[in-house]
Amino acid sequence: MKGHHILAELHDCDCPRTLLHDPHALQALCRTACNAGALTVVAEAFHAFGTSDAPAGATGAVVLAESHLAIHTWPEIGRSGAVTLDLYVCNFSRDNRENAERAFAHLVATLQPRHIHRQDVARGVLPAFHPT
Amino acid sequence: MKGHHILAELHDCDCPRTLLHDPHALQALCRTACNAGALTVVAEAFHAFGTSDAPAGATGAVVLAESHLAIHTWPEIGRSGAVTLDLYVCNFSRDNRENAERAFAHLVATLQPRHIHRQDVARGVLPAFHPT
Repeated sequence: MKGHHILAELHDCDCPRTLLHDPHALQALCRTACNAGALTVVAEAFHAFGTSDAPAGATGAVVLAESHLAIHTWPEIGRSGAVTLDLYVCNFSRDNRENAERAFAHLVATLQPRHIHRQDVARGVLPAFHPT
Repeated sequence: MKGHHILAELHDCDCPRTLLHDPHALQALCRTACNAGALTVVAEAFHAFGTSDAPAGATGAVVLAESHLAIHTWPEIGRSGAVTLDLYVCNFSRDNRENAERAFAHLVATLQPRHIHRQDVARGVLPAFHPT
């Protein structure tokens, strides 16, 4: 269950607004990004906030054979909207970090943030103490 | 988009094995945990690995109005199986950290791990530099 988790906030996204409002467009982007990273989609769930007349962001998760991608949009924040991203890949049968980087790069290239705050977390690396 | 993210690995889970193999049981647990934390479920996606004769773990995500819960089981790891958990709540309209702690506590109480490796990450807290 060792793995790598990218947590990122994308600020001032200059992408088409539909990506921040339409869960179907956001879902299609996530699928394409996972394909770009050769990650295996096994289930998906997306949701729109607000109404068609007054959209208020979209949210969703793509469950992967390698773990998951979760995404939440915040069209009202900053100059042109923000996005929070989680991309967690386990490195069980192979090291999937490069695949995760490719998927992340595709998301960033499409969402076009002017600023990224990224934190990387190593998963499944146990502290020294573990009861036997 | 400020928020709080709990990343946890639960080791040697002494819960009923069905929770580690059956995505419906895992999904029900996640729903109950979110309800215990007064978190609002808006979409869900779960998946089983392996076959009914040879189950190999379950995985899924619950998309919340407050962000998401993602869970992956590893029944083959350790003495009695492991689980990775992500529970991310935004603190947009209110501070949801206590709600997240209640949901997390419910998951831990049910999965009964003998050892927990937990990391907490503050989300949406920007570094000093931000282009204007």
